[in-house]
Amino acid sequence: MSLLSFFGRRTTAPQARERLQILLAHERIATSGQPDLLAKLREEILEVVGRHVAIERDKVIVKMERGAGVSTLEVDVEIPNDVQITKRAVGA
Amino acid sequence: MSLLSFFGRRTTAPQARERLQILLAHERIATSGQPDLLAKLREEILEVVGRHVAIERDKVIVKMERGAGVSTLEVDVEIPNDVQITKRAVGA
Repeated sequence: MSLLSFFGRRTTAPQARERLQILLAHERIATSGQPDLLAKLREEILEVVGRHVAIERDKVIVKMERGAGVSTLEVDVEIPNDVQITKRAVGA
Repeated sequence: MSLLSFFGRRTTAPQARERLQILLAHERIATSGQPDLLAKLREEILEVVGRHVAIERDKVIVKMERGAGVSTLEVDVEIPNDVQITKRAVGA
C-alpha cells in the first residue's frame, strides 16, 4: 500500500482544511536502543514545524502507542488557512 | 487500521536492526498552503533526529511523493546498534 493511499484513506476530515500529519515509528531491538526516543523527538519536531506554519496548540492532536518492539507517535496538525489568519490579525 | 499494524506490516527488513521511520503527509487546499513545506521540513527534522541517534547518510532512505492535494515524505533511518558503534569506535 503506498503512503498516499494510506493517508488518503485515513483522512476523515473534510478536504477544505490544510493539515499536516507526522507519523514516527521506532523499531527497537530488545537489548539496545532508546525506549523514549519518540518522546524526545516530539517537542523538537513540533518546534521545527512551528517555524514554518502557524500552530495552534488546540489544533494539534498527539497520539503515542508503545508496542513490544515498535513505538509509534502520531501528530496531526490542522493548519489555519490564510483567511483565518488574516481574520484573527484584523480582529487582534 | 492502527498505526502499529501499518508499520508492522510494512517492515520487510529483519527485526534485528533498530529503525526509525518518519512519515509526513501535507494535505493542502488548492488555493493556499505551502507546496514545498515538506522539502523545508526534511533537513530540519533529520537534524533533530541526528541530535539523538547516530545517523549515517548511507543508511537513510528518503522518498517524496506529490499528489494533487496530498504530498508525502518518507524517511527511513537504520540506526546502528551499540555493538556496531563500539566496533567502529575501536577501529577508528
